[in-house]
Amino acid sequence: MSNSIEQEVKNIVQLIMDDYKKPGAINKGDTFNQPNKDEIIHIIKNLQYIIFPRYFNNKVLKSYHKEYQLGAVIEDVTYQLNKQISFALRYRPIFAEAAKETVDKASEEITIAFMKKIPAIRECLETDVEAAYEGDPAAYSKDEIIFSYPGIFAIMINRIAHELYILDVPLIPRIMTEHAHSITGIDIHPGATIGKYFFIDHGTGIVIGETTKIGEHVKIYQGVTLGAVSTKGGQNLKGQKRHPTIEDGVTIYSGASILGGNTMIGQEVVIGSNAFVTSSVPCMTKVSTKNPELQFKTNRDTTFEVKELEQNGFLDYII
Amino acid sequence: MSNSIEQEVKNIVQLIMDDYKKPGAINKGDTFNQPNKDEIIHIIKNLQYIIFPRYFNNKVLKSYHKEYQLGAVIEDVTYQLNKQISFALRYRPIFAEAAKETVDKASEEITIAFMKKIPAIRECLETDVEAAYEGDPAAYSKDEIIFSYPGIFAIMINRIAHELYILDVPLIPRIMTEHAHSITGIDIHPGATIGKYFFIDHGTGIVIGETTKIGEHVKIYQGVTLGAVSTKGGQNLKGQKRHPTIEDGVTIYSGASILGGNTMIGQEVVIGSNAFVTSSVPCMTKVSTKNPELQFKTNRDTTFEVKELEQNGFLDYII
Amino acid sequence: MSNSIEQEVKNIVQLIMDDYKKPGAINKGDTFNQPNKDEIIHIIKNLQYIIFPRYFNNKVLKSYHKEYQLGAVIEDVTYQLNKQISFALRYRPIFAEAAKETVDKASEEITIAFMKKIPAIRECLETDVEAAYEGDPAAYSKDEIIFSYPGIFAIMINRIAHELYILDVPLIPRIMTEHAHSITGIDIHPGATIGKYFFIDHGTGIVIGETTKIGEHVKIYQGVTLGAVSTKGGQNLKGQKRHPTIEDGVTIYSGASILGGNTMIGQEVVIGSNAFVTSSVPCMTKVSTKNPELQFKTNRDTTFEVKELEQNGFLDYII
Repeated sequence: MSNSIEQEVKNIVQLIMDDYKKPGAINKGDTFNQPNKDEIIHIIKNLQYIIFPRYFNNKVLKSYHKEYQLGAVIEDVTYQLNKQISFALRYRPIFAEAAKETVDKASEEITIAFMKKIPAIRECLETDVEAAYEGDPAAYSKDEIIFSYPGIFAIMINRIAHELYILDVPLIPRIMTEHAHSITGIDIHPGATIGKYFFIDHGTGIVIGETTKIGEHVKIYQGVTLGAVSTKGGQNLKGQKRHPTIEDGVTIYSGASILGGNTMIGQEVVIGSNAFVTSSVPCMTKVSTKNPELQFKTNRDTTFEVKELEQNGFLDYII
Repeated sequence: MSNSIEQEVKNIVQLIMDDYKKPGAINKGDTFNQPNKDEIIHIIKNLQYIIFPRYFNNKVLKSYHKEYQLGAVIEDVTYQLNKQISFALRYRPIFAEAAKETVDKASEEITIAFMKKIPAIRECLETDVEAAYEGDPAAYSKDEIIFSYPGIFAIMINRIAHELYILDVPLIPRIMTEHAHSITGIDIHPGATIGKYFFIDHGTGIVIGETTKIGEHVKIYQGVTLGAVSTKGGQNLKGQKRHPTIEDGVTIYSGASILGGNTMIGQEVVIGSNAFVTSSVPCMTKVSTKNPELQFKTNRDTTFEVKELEQNGFLDYII
Repeated sequence: MSNSIEQEVKNIVQLIMDDYKKPGAINKGDTFNQPNKDEIIHIIKNLQYIIFPRYFNNKVLKSYHKEYQLGAVIEDVTYQLNKQISFALRYRPIFAEAAKETVDKASEEITIAFMKKIPAIRECLETDVEAAYEGDPAAYSKDEIIFSYPGIFAIMINRIAHELYILDVPLIPRIMTEHAHSITGIDIHPGATIGKYFFIDHGTGIVIGETTKIGEHVKIYQGVTLGAVSTKGGQNLKGQKRHPTIEDGVTIYSGASILGGNTMIGQEVVIGSNAFVTSSVPCMTKVSTKNPELQFKTNRDTTFEVKELEQNGFLDYII
């Protein structure tokens, strides 16, 4: 760099340092006493390794005796997660000013409670892999699903983050689900409750809101929103049931939106592509949209065979 | 950590170790004899470097003589890919119990066959860059496209993965395309066949199914699905043509869905935004949806000028 | 590897080396005199650390005196960005053949001008965090938004890249926004101009085109396109206003498309889910689509209560 830029750097550093002294939310953080996003992503990687031990490698530890390696990783996750939780708990009003010992004790209890949930999380994921294999003709093996399906990764993160959410851990669950959102395009709030045998196909663009309840054997395609009818109430709506309830055996095809906290989709309902649903649907019903009529114009000289293009009656076929 | 959590860790490790002994798909993996996702992503990075040698760096090797460096990277990819393929081939029934020599020989033949396809893959990608530059007024140079367009990355991975798919390699092609899906939001199954001069704009939310066939000079926008009409047949549908055929010169605007294995979209057809198409369209036809009518309500006191908002007739303009 | 594959590798290297000698865009790059994508992503990471200094860690430098660390990172970013800009400027015709000194001087001036914009960028982001907190009942704290919301990351990158774009830096702004696109699924062209208090909820699938202008207090949901009506003009359209203008206080719900360079959405307008808008809307208007009618079929024996499913009248509620 020339002299001029070297001198300017000093001014720039001063300019930015002065800027940090202004009031404002973005200047309030405290690096040494806050959860760390990179650490949380590292915990996720190790949890994935614990949950699917024979599929994902741990780079640090190499061992032919998986048991030793897994024991070490489980211990490491417990330690790291406990640390992150102890920072996060400070965001709960009751712990904001509490003694360090109080927070540490609460954090350890939560960490132990969470770690003991791992077998239950694995039990659910076994059913999710099963559902993906049964539901997708493009799946060649269950291993392919475990290795590569974004839906399985997103569901794994939801099942982990949801346990932390119901243990009242602030910040960390959402950092985890937003990491999954970044990797998969599937945005499931950690508050959402999801039953066994859940299958997400393709997944990109899916949004599942905080107070959604989903039963067992539910199947959801790309671009589906399970959302709120309006959020213009902002923070005043916190805690209210704003998102729908989906009962067992429901299938929701691509691009459909189901909105509202009182909206209940009954057992075995099928919701067709792009349907926009804002009230309840009784069980065993097929709901489809009359997709917008198509218009055709041709540049060819030949007569246009309208019949060939007839779109009527395909809806029953779709769902 | 306090004594209590240190003691609990032992119990947690035991709990999870016991859980691994249960039957179930997620306990069946075998780390040392399975493809490794991290290695496959590393292979992709090196293949990108080989394909666009003057755009993407290889961190490990630094050399002013690109040729030496490239030679080394090509050798490394060949070695690593061969290793991963030899693991993956065990998923094919004919190799599940075969002698190691048999599998190794098959793996080497496939690896060599794949590596020799690289010039043909590069030839296609040259045309894809050309199509992106011609098609996008926001593109300032071809280098910008190579460096940054997600469509080019997704197409590169499809062209690589498709070659492995037609060489009957299990697992690896799908791990590759799901990596591209994660990076770009574009989900192209490795089975899809795609002609030259393929242009994807924006891309997020695109789904292109396994048995899709796409001709040359095809242009696709964000949120387009080339899918199956129904997958409720699950594994019974495997191998059937479930996804559409798109002929040369077709343009498909954002959010359109084209579904079904018998659906053929003829040459030079233009499909408008959000159209939902489940039967064939003859060549040189413009298909548009009559988009749902808009409703307007104003909070202002002044008379509402409906004419200003008139939406009729814009559809021809769109396509 | 067996002898056969070792011998073949030589042939493969030769085959690919010969292929590089062909003419074509993908063979024109020049590693040593071109921007480097990995370096640009590294600059983004450091800029995020400078902008939110107490939230994101810098792995390399550990220090209890944040000021020393930040000073060092600011200097590092200035140096690295200057280097990348000096390579990128060669893509501008006036610098393509210019003397090294001329390019270096221009690069330093641009780098200094950009770095001095950081306080202004931070001022905007403070308002964006505020808007996200006010607008989203699922947000538990502003820190949660800073740590995890993809919208904040995408807006941060847009605000950085837009400053470089208006300083006429080629390539780098787009590499930055496409990185954000990859991480978040939100595709904002660096040319787009965005006012304060901008809130993106969920975000996946959003596309905001190059010539879009967005006012203050605007709120946008997943899957929204602010796009061009047609890009079939390709490179001939470069520089034209192709994308809409969104005035202050506008809310645009999920899946809506607003297209065209002359389309102006007036103050306080609300655009409902999935609306497809291609002409201007006067201020204080609510625009909603009559969503496609739903069709219901039941497999149950009991009489079907249509009234329960009545969908009429929900539109006013939605917006």
